Amino acid sequence: MSDGVLFDKVAFIGIGLIGSSLARALRQEGLAGRLATYDHSAEARAKALELGVVDEAPADLGEAVRDADLVMVCVPIGACADLGPALAPHLKPGAIVSDVGSVKQAVIRDLGPVIPDGVFFVPGHPIAGTEHSGPEAGFAELFQGRWCIITPPTGTNEEAVEKVAEMWRRVGSMVEIMDPHHHDKVLAITSHLPHLIAYTIVGTATGLEESLQQEVIKFSASGFRDFTRIAASDPVMWRDIFLNNREAVLEMLQRFSEDLTALQRAIRWGEGDTLQDLFTRTRAVRRGIVDARQA
Amino acid sequence: MSDGVLFDKVAFIGIGLIGSSLARALRQEGLAGRLATYDHSAEARAKALELGVVDEAPADLGEAVRDADLVMVCVPIGACADLGPALAPHLKPGAIVSDVGSVKQAVIRDLGPVIPDGVFFVPGHPIAGTEHSGPEAGFAELFQGRWCIITPPTGTNEEAVEKVAEMWRRVGSMVEIMDPHHHDKVLAITSHLPHLIAYTIVGTATGLEESLQQEVIKFSASGFRDFTRIAASDPVMWRDIFLNNREAVLEMLQRFSEDLTALQRAIRWGEGDTLQDLFTRTRAVRRGIVDARQA
Repeated sequence: MSDGVLFDKVAFIGIGLIGSSLARALRQEGLAGRLATYDHSAEARAKALELGVVDEAPADLGEAVRDADLVMVCVPIGACADLGPALAPHLKPGAIVSDVGSVKQAVIRDLGPVIPDGVFFVPGHPIAGTEHSGPEAGFAELFQGRWCIITPPTGTNEEAVEKVAEMWRRVGSMVEIMDPHHHDKVLAITSHLPHLIAYTIVGTATGLEESLQQEVIKFSASGFRDFTRIAASDPVMWRDIFLNNREAVLEMLQRFSEDLTALQRAIRWGEGDTLQDLFTRTRAVRRGIVDARQA
Repeated sequence: MSDGVLFDKVAFIGIGLIGSSLARALRQEGLAGRLATYDHSAEARAKALELGVVDEAPADLGEAVRDADLVMVCVPIGACADLGPALAPHLKPGAIVSDVGSVKQAVIRDLGPVIPDGVFFVPGHPIAGTEHSGPEAGFAELFQGRWCIITPPTGTNEEAVEKVAEMWRRVGSMVEIMDPHHHDKVLAITSHLPHLIAYTIVGTATGLEESLQQEVIKFSASGFRDFTRIAASDPVMWRDIFLNNREAVLEMLQRFSEDLTALQRAIRWGEGDTLQDLFTRTRAVRRGIVDARQA
């Protein structure tokens, strides 16, 4: 495929940070003829229209989806189970349904069975985001230089997969095809566990005596603030991620807890070498990320 | 005090990220007549000279310190116990000794007793830094808009405290006077525990199967990379912090572990409300930090 329009009409179900960023990028790159959105929030619909992110934002899901060549599901994962049956009757033959959810097995479980014959389901996950939410938080450059993982279930139409991959490449991403189960395991350690831990430590700080709490904010530049950025991400989206990637998250959390207990023991017994060895190893990981240009 | 030179000669013991940043800032603001350094690393001494960070960098501690009006100790905390006796004989009457260590009770314990009569010891801790180390990593603006906590033991000469405070203000910092014990508790939650957790999770990732490890780096933009930045900080410096603020770190770690276990349980039993409530609270903390201009 070369330049030009990829889809005559793209419909976004949910127009938050990710949906609105992709809509902006599609428009900027001239990849879509027409952009529509349905969001259960009237405020988000109005905002998306006002910002010119989409051309239409009807209050009716079916109307938004009608005649769409690509339907991008950009809602919290937990909303997919109810969304599927509401969405299915409005999908036109030959359409592609894709999504951006952070857990792939759950989305495939909830959306897969209701997608009609002749409609292609290509689950995906762009590895990009910020701590901000809502249509006003989006920007067209969000996906540039970032990975997008596509996790087609066995037997998915290859042309449909390639078309979704091409879209992500044209908004600046690198594309990786991955097994859904493996995706959920990789994301459990790279994304879900880090967020869980950030939420926890910020929560621990809010449980301190009142006087200490003020100082935690004042002196947060010493490390804490990096966690607060992560722990400011959308609460509902993250609730749904943890509820829907339970097994993988609990497994990674168990490994983490064992490692933390070992470090706790090293501190208690003054085992400096154990600490220094680990801290030297972790420094090398950072170098790997900088080298991979994902810093 | 108004504009002009605050100290005729300042000697830095240790010229890494913090020492070299302060040296640059003192020079830029015209706060010191002459800058000297002693570092146990000949390479660091040569680099600091080459970069023009200091005027002299003798291989002898005594020579670097001779006639200094301010001696800034900028070494890992664990080096203070040996440094004290080596430093003491060379301090001139009326000089001020200060430091930048992240644990104040340990520094006071190790340096306090050897400071001669007529020399003033003013422990301090600038809440600023990056994940980079060494004299080449420093920059004059590091302290601008950041807090510096000064923790003078009871009875410290007030003029000396004010002079050190004035120096930090003139390089752009806001100054807070604090009890050393309280400082160590505040830093345990805002800095030491976040670093410990970041080191742990990056360590956990390095313990994964080889194939997963590569993907952790590749897809790190989803949260993990923020931890790797923190976990790239100087290994010796951080080893010493944990060994020297053991009680406070272990207490905060205990609280954190309890909170993490509660979240683990909520995930296992699918308690979405518990998760969402916490995630909503932590988001507010971020807002506090943004409002306090420490983001």
